[in-house]
Parts: sequence; structure tokens; C-alpha cells
Amino acid sequence: MSLAAGRPYLAIPGPSVMPDAVLQAMHQPAPNIYEGDIVTMVQGMVPDLKKVARTDGKVAIYIANGHGAWEASLTNIAGPGDKVLVCVTGRFGHGWADMAEGLGITADKIDFGTKTGIDATRLEEALKADTSHEYKAVLFSHVDTATSLLNDPRPLRAAMDAAGHPALLMADCIASMGCEEFQMDAWGVDIAVTGSQKGLMVPPGLSFVFVGPRAEQVRKAMPRVSRYWDWTPRIDPDFFYQFFGGTAPTHHLFGLRASLTLLHDEGMEQVWKRHVTLAEAIWAACEAWSSDNGALRLNVADRALRSHAVTALGLGERNGSALRQWVANNAGVTLGIGLGMETKEDPRGEGFFRIGHMGHLNAHMVLGMLGTLEAGMQAIGVHHGPGALGAAAKVIAAA
Amino acid sequence: MSLAAGRPYLAIPGPSVMPDAVLQAMHQPAPNIYEGDIVTMVQGMVPDLKKVARTDGKVAIYIANGHGAWEASLTNIAGPGDKVLVCVTGRFGHGWADMAEGLGITADKIDFGTKTGIDATRLEEALKADTSHEYKAVLFSHVDTATSLLNDPRPLRAAMDAAGHPALLMADCIASMGCEEFQMDAWGVDIAVTGSQKGLMVPPGLSFVFVGPRAEQVRKAMPRVSRYWDWTPRIDPDFFYQFFGGTAPTHHLFGLRASLTLLHDEGMEQVWKRHVTLAEAIWAACEAWSSDNGALRLNVADRALRSHAVTALGLGERNGSALRQWVANNAGVTLGIGLGMETKEDPRGEGFFRIGHMGHLNAHMVLGMLGTLEAGMQAIGVHHGPGALGAAAKVIAAA
Amino acid sequence: MSLAAGRPYLAIPGPSVMPDAVLQAMHQPAPNIYEGDIVTMVQGMVPDLKKVARTDGKVAIYIANGHGAWEASLTNIAGPGDKVLVCVTGRFGHGWADMAEGLGITADKIDFGTKTGIDATRLEEALKADTSHEYKAVLFSHVDTATSLLNDPRPLRAAMDAAGHPALLMADCIASMGCEEFQMDAWGVDIAVTGSQKGLMVPPGLSFVFVGPRAEQVRKAMPRVSRYWDWTPRIDPDFFYQFFGGTAPTHHLFGLRASLTLLHDEGMEQVWKRHVTLAEAIWAACEAWSSDNGALRLNVADRALRSHAVTALGLGERNGSALRQWVANNAGVTLGIGLGMETKEDPRGEGFFRIGHMGHLNAHMVLGMLGTLEAGMQAIGVHHGPGALGAAAKVIAAA
Amino acid sequence: MSLAAGRPYLAIPGPSVMPDAVLQAMHQPAPNIYEGDIVTMVQGMVPDLKKVARTDGKVAIYIANGHGAWEASLTNIAGPGDKVLVCVTGRFGHGWADMAEGLGITADKIDFGTKTGIDATRLEEALKADTSHEYKAVLFSHVDTATSLLNDPRPLRAAMDAAGHPALLMADCIASMGCEEFQMDAWGVDIAVTGSQKGLMVPPGLSFVFVGPRAEQVRKAMPRVSRYWDWTPRIDPDFFYQFFGGTAPTHHLFGLRASLTLLHDEGMEQVWKRHVTLAEAIWAACEAWSSDNGALRLNVADRALRSHAVTALGLGERNGSALRQWVANNAGVTLGIGLGMETKEDPRGEGFFRIGHMGHLNAHMVLGMLGTLEAGMQAIGVHHGPGALGAAAKVIAAA
Repeated sequence: MSLAAGRPYLAIPGPSVMPDAVLQAMHQPAPNIYEGDIVTMVQGMVPDLKKVARTDGKVAIYIANGHGAWEASLTNIAGPGDKVLVCVTGRFGHGWADMAEGLGITADKIDFGTKTGIDATRLEEALKADTSHEYKAVLFSHVDTATSLLNDPRPLRAAMDAAGHPALLMADCIASMGCEEFQMDAWGVDIAVTGSQKGLMVPPGLSFVFVGPRAEQVRKAMPRVSRYWDWTPRIDPDFFYQFFGGTAPTHHLFGLRASLTLLHDEGMEQVWKRHVTLAEAIWAACEAWSSDNGALRLNVADRALRSHAVTALGLGERNGSALRQWVANNAGVTLGIGLGMETKEDPRGEGFFRIGHMGHLNAHMVLGMLGTLEAGMQAIGVHHGPGALGAAAKVIAAA
Repeated sequence: MSLAAGRPYLAIPGPSVMPDAVLQAMHQPAPNIYEGDIVTMVQGMVPDLKKVARTDGKVAIYIANGHGAWEASLTNIAGPGDKVLVCVTGRFGHGWADMAEGLGITADKIDFGTKTGIDATRLEEALKADTSHEYKAVLFSHVDTATSLLNDPRPLRAAMDAAGHPALLMADCIASMGCEEFQMDAWGVDIAVTGSQKGLMVPPGLSFVFVGPRAEQVRKAMPRVSRYWDWTPRIDPDFFYQFFGGTAPTHHLFGLRASLTLLHDEGMEQVWKRHVTLAEAIWAACEAWSSDNGALRLNVADRALRSHAVTALGLGERNGSALRQWVANNAGVTLGIGLGMETKEDPRGEGFFRIGHMGHLNAHMVLGMLGTLEAGMQAIGVHHGPGALGAAAKVIAAA
Repeated sequence: MSLAAGRPYLAIPGPSVMPDAVLQAMHQPAPNIYEGDIVTMVQGMVPDLKKVARTDGKVAIYIANGHGAWEASLTNIAGPGDKVLVCVTGRFGHGWADMAEGLGITADKIDFGTKTGIDATRLEEALKADTSHEYKAVLFSHVDTATSLLNDPRPLRAAMDAAGHPALLMADCIASMGCEEFQMDAWGVDIAVTGSQKGLMVPPGLSFVFVGPRAEQVRKAMPRVSRYWDWTPRIDPDFFYQFFGGTAPTHHLFGLRASLTLLHDEGMEQVWKRHVTLAEAIWAACEAWSSDNGALRLNVADRALRSHAVTALGLGERNGSALRQWVANNAGVTLGIGLGMETKEDPRGEGFFRIGHMGHLNAHMVLGMLGTLEAGMQAIGVHHGPGALGAAAKVIAAA
Repeated sequence: MSLAAGRPYLAIPGPSVMPDAVLQAMHQPAPNIYEGDIVTMVQGMVPDLKKVARTDGKVAIYIANGHGAWEASLTNIAGPGDKVLVCVTGRFGHGWADMAEGLGITADKIDFGTKTGIDATRLEEALKADTSHEYKAVLFSHVDTATSLLNDPRPLRAAMDAAGHPALLMADCIASMGCEEFQMDAWGVDIAVTGSQKGLMVPPGLSFVFVGPRAEQVRKAMPRVSRYWDWTPRIDPDFFYQFFGGTAPTHHLFGLRASLTLLHDEGMEQVWKRHVTLAEAIWAACEAWSSDNGALRLNVADRALRSHAVTALGLGERNGSALRQWVANNAGVTLGIGLGMETKEDPRGEGFFRIGHMGHLNAHMVLGMLGTLEAGMQAIGVHHGPGALGAAAKVIAAA
């Protein structure tokens, strides 16, 4: 019997659950886009956006998804014949590199696999080997949504400094911004990109490129940048429409305004801590299920390397898919598919799944999702260790 | 640290969580109320409403809350000088009796306390003692929202038949309709009243009186009934406005249409079973917490007497209030206050609380709410037995 | 060819067009009804409601439509065997009288027809003839929605004073409150009733009884008043639920809060003046159409007796219906049907129609509606005088 | 006194007024983007989109505004060193040319001024002069939103054929698609671009490139196209995310689905005819105001060259701005600013304004807007000829 007839809960790693205030704010008539409230609103949003990334730099807003932000950020600092170095820790690292290749940029990749994150030593070695400083930038995923690996930018910056390499440090924060602590300026990141639909809790369709002063300098040296991607007028517009390279994305802006207000009313530090605690509750449950020869495996063994916004898991055989289907059909929860986890034995990655725990998220949502996972594993006959739900509740109780 | 910044979850015994489809349906411009779509829509809703109550009788729709439906139902069948007999199993039984008194009707009460439900033998005795058949009706709560007692109408009907008493059997189904199995015709109920904001999943503001043929006869014998409460034109209108004794409650009707579609698409039997299973999951957890000298007490010990839509609980001292506050502030869950549970030691009923589990409800919502209860009891230092969350998940898994 | 595929415009005399802010405010989850924001919100609304009626008296809020408010107001001041005097100037005057009869109250009527309003001299005579002061109240419609007659309360109060009659003066302000100037205290009105769906711009389902000090005294002398209609706990509640005699109408309250904010932000005097000017624009057009032997007839010839919120019109033969259909099908405008205007020659009142111009209304809406009327009269071949639209625009220009 | 306190009406040339059904559709939780309903929905939308453009070709959907679609369309068919020929009839023609230059494409322009549209003879001459067929495409605006000129594609295609030139014919249909008749295949257009926020009645944020078979061939010969703009996977995706080059723009898609349903339920021919008739009503009024030495001037004198979706007007001195302000402040109507109309005497174009009449538009909206223009001209003291509103109503009546 299905027990799904209540509020659906989308626990995929983006788009995330949207606050009612965001959807409400988007439910309004079209505004004038030449003058009036929307102009004031956008001018007020820019500093609020920068507070999310902790930067005194600039921000360019794009009507685009995260792939668009990838392309935008690259277009402004490199072109055909240029080279970048990409630290890959999952499918999305490959994706950004591919985007560079599409622009005629050579993207050299260091592949760190899917389980252990970036080894800064190897990065330092690669940069030292680039004696002619051909790499214009080092690209990495702050969180790779596929593997749920969290890469700390600080050792990367240290490696670059140690190598004395002038490349820009570019962070893909699509799955992390607004969830994980991120200090763009303090941590020495030159460019950070993100999208609207995860920690920012707005529908997909907007993306953002944060631009530090060194990146601005590199842009200025570029011979030509396409009008749509050129961040120059966007980060310092003379006219309102230049914020968006044309017509403003009115309704996403309404939603984003609501979202930024929620985030800053809560406080970014508190938002980050909330994600830490809720992630620890999830890990406590997952580690309990893994115990006693349970079938579940957390993709990332080291807690220090785990994202606080997404968790990739393996359940063996086709049980990832089976569990996803059971909780969707019987409990009203939608989990994320495994991405980039295909193996010979499991060519469609059906043994894997992901939990999104980003954005508008609180204790009962996490505990309810975990409860349905336990019920689901039991229902489909997957062996799992005991005490998981109590362990998660204990983390919540202690918060 | 608060972990409440996500979707709020209102787990009080009404108003219940509303489906998005209901709120969506209510978000539309005012319609013409003289002709067109709304007329067709209402005519189509009447049979759907009657299917919820399982009756071939009539239904009167009132713009009113449940108290209004109480008054409406009484006004049509009794007046000053008449008598009714009220079987009281909690605060709401007293409330209906009080409503009768306000109409000049003498309301004799049999008080069955707050824990064991109606004893049909005592009802039968009382009716046998009424040899002149002064009681025009026997009133009872199918579920009393305060105590969470479920009263089966069938033994009451049997007692009335055994006593050979012609009184009408009137059921307060405000907290039960659309959640608990209810078979108005098959079970011999003459009048059933309910409201929009619980099992029907629509905001408060509409209520319903279902009218069986014997009740219609009694109405016809009444010398005068106030125009607003008179169900005669409402159950068989010549003009559209008569459905509502004046202007139609347009937006509640839009919401109700959406809600009835959801209910009947799922199927009433399935809706009832879903509530049974989810209640059993809640009971499994509560019984586990009660074990091992846990502080928690289910108000109703006998599972057969428990509502499947609301559960009243005691936690001792002021811990009911403390728990409510903890889960609201830290986990985003709002529980119901204890009602009518005041004692000398606890004059404000702060040791009690209630879980609403009615309407638009699925497995992850229930499991998440239970998880926060466990976290909350731990956080406020209330002793509770082990294994509650696993026990609840087991019920879900077996469904 | 239909030109209706744009925003529909409902120009009937209630429900009126709702502001987006009202619908937005109603699109939110169910709130806790025992404590928290809704309690604060309602306490803050009571003074704002009283400012609309310009009274320092009390207000009772009912979950009911206008017919419910009629019944509520009467129930508190009269009962079986009592008498009231009703000044009838249209269908709704008859309706209120009928509501009184349903309560066992004798309702004597003075019928002033449908075109000239109340003659205060006749009222004074009737009251003088009531030497034993049997009439407990004088009832009248501030605006009768059917005839669009506006009855000034001041001469009625003067007549009552001149007659030295102690009856209460009770005003039906359902079609006028929030549109027409109304000064309950200054004008000597003891009880005023209204609904949510016209000048208050909220869906039907709430109604209001404003209670002056003399009315409170009369209530206190009543032997018994039904619990649902009793205004005593509603106007001075000890507990929050008593405001509403049970469960609060949460979503209507959200909408009403938004509406009251809009009204008071604009300012009641400005709201009234806006209705005056827009009505004058409508009259200017209608008078122009009537000129040159045009078929159109304003039901009320004297501008001083015309409502500023609704205008009843005759077009002869079945042309009222034909025009309504044309503008609905071809231009997206819904006009009100003629009510209570049936004649021998026109037994279904198809020669008549009404324009609602109440509430959330501005210049372009009125001018657009008038433009479609001109187009419609031309299309269905009804002769009409020239210059109507220019005359209306001139009124707007001069505002 | 302001008469603006009712429904605001945004009569600018985009974004256009959105149907309630579109905003409703967008008010829903985030969906799964990997499987389920959204996949089916998008697959069903593609043919409906192509029916709007009347093409059997392909369509690429971009998360971008119109400027993004300009860049996308160019990127797929030309690159650095290539040349295109742009027929300019207003500011937006210059804009598209500028976008080409940003991509390293040489954009030769023929400027046809702002009042008379494209002279196909001059185009033919220019193409004949390009004997080495360097121009890869001829770009033009179907409607230039700034000047409100309508350029018929058929003579352009004929000129290209007469010149025997193989260039692609590329139409900017941003301001026209869904409003003006457009037959991409029958009229020989190879690429058409549009946005979501005008005739498609969805918020800004989506744009569309329709791709004919000759354009597909040109794309295939391109050495490299950036991943985001490459239409290849978008027009023929293997995986769902490829439709959008990454994460799907879920909420815009919900809105677009609703909008396409409205358009096709009405029928594209009927939609086009409705725009023709409503435009003719506007012209009738404007021509009347211009008569008798009225100050108003339609920018385009020849009816055959006027857009049916936007009308550019001059009022002299600063009266364009003054009128815009008056109708916004006093009547609730927002008009469009003049764009690209600056002169020495009027360096900020304050003598000009534009009426948007595109998309979700019906007779009462147009007539109401015209009525406020008349009131406004009178209020600010601009001389205008008589009979304008009656003339517009006559067009509506005759439809």
C-alpha cells in the first residue's frame, strides 16, 4: 500500500526544496523593466549576493544554468589556444573541462578519482612543471555533486602559492554555495561560480560568477569576449539592462530577493552550521546502517572530505534504484540517482543513489527522509545495521 | 542551534496540512457567482461530498466553522423546550451540548470520561429510561479531538435499536471525516457534521451537515428554522445561491473541488487505510517510548479506541509544553496543545500535547515528526524507552 | 471574432476584483490557530476594521456570507414576538426582512420602490404611529445592490430622533462598506453589517457586524442568543477562538489583513473619493449614451441617490442580456445581471444589467469596461447617444 | 487625485501581461529533473513550439534572454573572420549586429532608418555585390521593438533568391512571435529567434532558436561551437538534460507549457487576427488623436509596415514622458519608454513612448489603455483630435 499521499519531498542534489516565500515572491505580474522597483531591488541584491560568497569582489548575474556559468567564467579569462588545469574529483570536474575544450581552450586534467578528493601535492607538482606558466587557471569543484566530495580551497591556494604560479584559482560552487562555508577572498579564490537552484533555493535559470580583482585584470587583457558572456558591463553596469546583458529575468530576481533575505536573516554562519549538523545526522544514520555488515556504503569514507549538502551512497546490485523507487512510491520521497558511478558490474549505476540535503532544510525533513530509507531498505530486503534513526536523532538533540 | 529553517510542518489536529493543489486552486480571480463554471462545479461536488460520508442522503454546505455546523444541525431538528442526549468523551462533546443549550434545547449529558469511550450499555439504559421519548437526538463525537478517542457508531445504533428509541443519531465527524472509515448509511447515522479544515484539507471556513431521510422528516415537523441554518433550500436548491443561503464561498469551493478530486483519485478505502497505517507507526513509536518506564503516556490505552487522525499524549509535569517548544524552535514541527486535560497538579495542561495526523499525510512526514519527538525528549531530558523510530519504520516497511 | 483572450474583468457588483496582494496572502500553509502570529494579526485587525466603518464601537467577525451577517445582527437584538421596521428600496431590503421573519420576528416593511430611495418623512410617520415603541429596530440598505440606490443614513437618524423613537438604526452596508463614505458613529447608526467580498476585496466567506453602545445594551437584555450568532464573546473575547466562535478562518484573515493594509495605506477618504470619481465617469458615459434617444436608462435618475459602487441599468427588451453576453464573449468583461427588475413585459429581467464598480478599481478598468459597452451596444444594434467615452475620459482627466 | 488603486496594467512592449494560468503553473515545488513528468512535458512541448513558428525544422531552447538567443543563433553558423549582413530598422537591428561583432564576426549593416522598413531592392543589390558569397547570413528584425516597424520576410527571401545568394535568412522574432503571423518554412526563413516574455507570455529567462535544414547544414560545417550555445544536442538530445545544456529551467517550462496550451487552444490564426484587430483599434484612436493638428504622431505612417504588437509614438517636447507618468500615477497603466528615438532637440527621447499590445490582451484592456491616454493628454494639456475612443470601439464592435 502506498503511503505517499502527502507532501512530496524532493531530496535530490538540486534543484532543492524551495521556500514558500520564494514561490510566493515569483507569483506576481510582470514588472516594468526600465525603471522603478526592480532597479532598486537588484542594486540592493548585489551586496547580499557577495555576502553569500564572502567576497568584496564583483558579481556577474547570468540568465543561464550552471553549465552557462562554467562557460561564462572561462570565456572571460581564456580563449582558443589557452590552457587551464582541471582538478577532477567526479563527473562535474570532467564537465567543466569539457566546457573549456568547447571554447578551444586546452584543459589538462588531473583525475583524483571519486573517493578521496584533491591531493594538493600533486597539484603543486603539476604547477611547478608548468615553468612557462601556460595554465591561465586552476579549476576545481568545491563540491562535486556526483561524488559528494568536498574540496577545501585553502590547500589548493597554498599549493599554487608554493609553486609560485600566477594562474587563477576557479571554484565550481554550484553544489555548495549557500550550504558549505566558503570564504572567497580569505581563501584566495579568484573566480567562483554557482547557480540559483541549490543553496540559493530558487528555480534553475540564474547563475552567478563572482570575480576577484586578479580575475578582472586577466579579463582586461583578453582580446575579445562574447557580448553575452562578457562580465564587464554586468559587474559594473551603466544601464540597468546591462546587469543581465538584455532583458532582466524578473521572476527569478523576485525569488532570489526572497531567498537572500531568508539566508541573511538566518545568518550565513548559522546556515552553514545547520548544514553541518544535518549532514552529521545523515552520516550517523548511514554509518549505523553500514555497520554489522550492512550493504550501504558512503562513497566518501573520510568525514573531512564529505560534502554537507549532498551524500553519495552505494547499496550494491540494483538496490540503489530499487530503494529510490520504493521511497518514491511508498513514502513520497524522491532521492537522487547515482551519477558517474557506473562500473562494469553496474553499467547503469543502479547500485547507487544520492541524498540531496541542501538549502531549505530542517530537522524533521532529514529525519523523515532517513526514516523512509530505513523502511525502504527493510521493505526491499537489504541488510542494514541497527540504531540508525536513533543515532540521527541524537545528533539533532545535541545540536 | 536551531535546525528549523526549512519547511515548517504543522502537526496539530486541525487545520491540517493542505495539498499544494488546494492552495493553487484557491489562487484565482473572483468568478461570476450567477452562472457559468462555478454552478457546474458545485453540482458536481455534491455527489463527491456524499461519497466521503458514504451516504445516499443529502448534504448541506455552510459557510461556517465546525461550531456553526453543530448549531446548524441542531437548529434543524430541535428548538426551545426540546431535549437531546449527549454522549461526552472529551471537551468537544461538552461543546456540542453547550451549543444545544444556547438554542434553548435541554442537553442531558452522559460523561464517559476521557479515556475509554462510550459504553453503549449505559446509553441503552438512558434511552430505555426515556419512556416518553423526549430525546429528539443522541449526539456523540466520532472522534473527540481533545482526547483522541474514537467512538464506533455501530454499537450506539444497536443500543438505540435495542432500546426501541426513535431519537436521531447525530455524529460529530469534524476530526474524523476523510480520515477514519465512516459509513453513514450502513452504520445507521442520521446526521453527520464535519468541517473543511481536517480530513478535507481545505482552510477552515466551510462546514457540512449530512442529512439522512429520518432527519429530513424531523426537520419537516419543525415549526420554524432560521433562514441561515435551514438546510431545506441548501440540500435541494432551486437557485444556485440557495446552496449557500446567499453568496457562494467561491474560493473555498475551488479548494474543496481540488481536495475531493485528490481523495477520490486515491480512493476513500485507501485514504482510510493510509491513516490506519500511519497511526500504527505513531503508536509503535509511542509505545516504545513508553516502555522501560518512559515518561510518555498515550491517553487512550486500547488501540481499538484510538483515533487514526489525532493522538493525545501525556509527558508529565510541564514537559508537554517543553517538548512542543523544542520541536517548534529546533526542528520546524508544530504540535497540538493538550486540550481539556487540565488537572489539579497541571492546571494549564502543560504536561500534555497532541499529534495531528490527518489528511495530506505520508510516511516521511510521520517519520520526520517522530524523529523530532525523540530528539526533543532527549534534548529536554525526558526518559523514553528505546527503539521507537525503528519500530515506526518497521510498520511503514510492512505496509 | 472573439477579442476576449486576455485578462478577464469581472465587473459584477460583488464579488469584486481582488488585489493580487490579497490572493498572495491567502496562498500560504495552514498556521497554528492556538498561538503565534495569527493571534497578533487578528488583534491588530480589529481597530483597522473599525476604521473602515468609522466607529469606536465593537465589531464581531463571522464566518458567514452577508445573509449570515443579516441573521447574526438580528439574532442579537430581537427574537420571536419582537418587531422590526424595514425600509425597502430593492430586493435586498426584502431579503433582510425575510431573514427576520425566519427568526420569528415580525418585519413590517415600507416599500419605497426601486428608483427614489427612502422618504424619511414616511419613516418618521411610521415611527410616530408606533406609540408603544414595539419596533426594536429600523433596518435599511445603505446601498441596495439590486437597484443601486444609495440611502443616506442621516435623514433616517433625524427622522427617528424627531419621532422620539428608541429603535436601533441598522444599516446593511454589504454593497457599500469600503466604497461609499460611511460614518457609523457620527451618523447615528447603531448596527452596520457587511461582507468581505465587495469593498473589502476578499473572497466571500467572512462577514462583519459593527455594534454600537446602544445595540450592546439591547443585546444584554436578550433572554438567550444562539452561541454561533452571539456577538458577546466575539466582540470581547477571553480566548482567541472566541473571536470566531470556534476555529479561526485562517486564510480569509490573511487576505483581509492584506486588504485592510491596502485600504488604509490609500486612506479611507481617498478610497471613497476614488469611487466617487470613477462612478461619475461611468455616469457621464451612461448619460451620454442615454441622450439622443439612446436606449440606455440609468435606474436611478437623481445623481444624489446613486451608489458609487454599483450602477443598475436598463437597455430594453432582452438587450441587457444580449449586451452582457456580447461583452463576455468578445471582450473579456463580465457584467452583473439585473436583479429584482422583472416586469410583466420582461419577466426574467433580461432588459437590465448592472455594473459593479467597487473595490480594487482604477481608471483604466472603468474606461476599458465602458469602451466595451459602447462596442457591444454598437455590435448588437442598440441605439446610443454619442460622445460617451470622451465624456468619461474627461471626468478622469479632471480628477 | 490618483485613480490608480486597482489592477496595474503593464502596457510596455515586453515583458507582456502574463495569464494567470502561467503564473499558477509556475507556483509549484521543484520537480525531479532526471525522470518523470517533466521529461514527458518537454517532449510534448517541442512540437507545440514549432507550431508557433510554423516550421517542420528544429528548435533549441536556451536559458537566456533575447540577447542570448541572438548570440546562440550566430555562434552556430559563423565565427571569427566570417561576415553577416544586417538589415537595420531600429535599435534592435544595431543590437544584433553588435552581438555578431562581439563574436568576431564582421557585421555589415544597411540602415533603413526608423520609419519605412527594409527596402528589398537595396538588399538584393548588396547581395549581388557580394560575388564571393562572403555573407553567411542576412539578419533582420521581423518587428523592431524600438520603431515598431514590421518587416515582411517574403520580399527579403525573394531578393536573396533573385540575387542567387546562399546566405541564411535569420529573423529576430523576439517582439513578434506569437503575435504576428509568421510562417518560417513557407516564407523561407532559415533561423528564427525569440524570447519567452512577449507573445509567449512567460517571464523573461527562456529563449528559442528555430533551425531550418539549411542552417543545420551550415552548423555541421563549423569547426567548433561553444558547448552552451551549440544547438546540436539541444535540438536532438540523447539525454533529457541536453535539451537545456545542463539543468532544466523547470519553472519557466511549467509556465511555457501553460502558455502554449492557451495559444493552441485559441489557435494561432485566431491569435494573429486578434492582434490585428486590437492593433487596428489602437491605430484608429491614434489616427483620430493625430487629426485636427493633434500632437500625436505614429512613428510608422504606413499601416502595412506597422507591427501588430507594439506601437511607437511621438508626442513632442517632453510630453511622452509626461504622459507616461500621468497614466502610471493616475490610472494604473505603465507605457513603454521611447527607445532609439533620441534627437538633438530631445536627447533623452522624452517626446516618445510606446504601447505594448502583445500576448495576453483583449478588448477591454486595449480600450481602457486608450481611454487613459485620452484622459492623460487632456490632463497634461496636449492637443488631440476628437473621436478617438469611439473610433477604437467601432473597430472592436465590427470584429
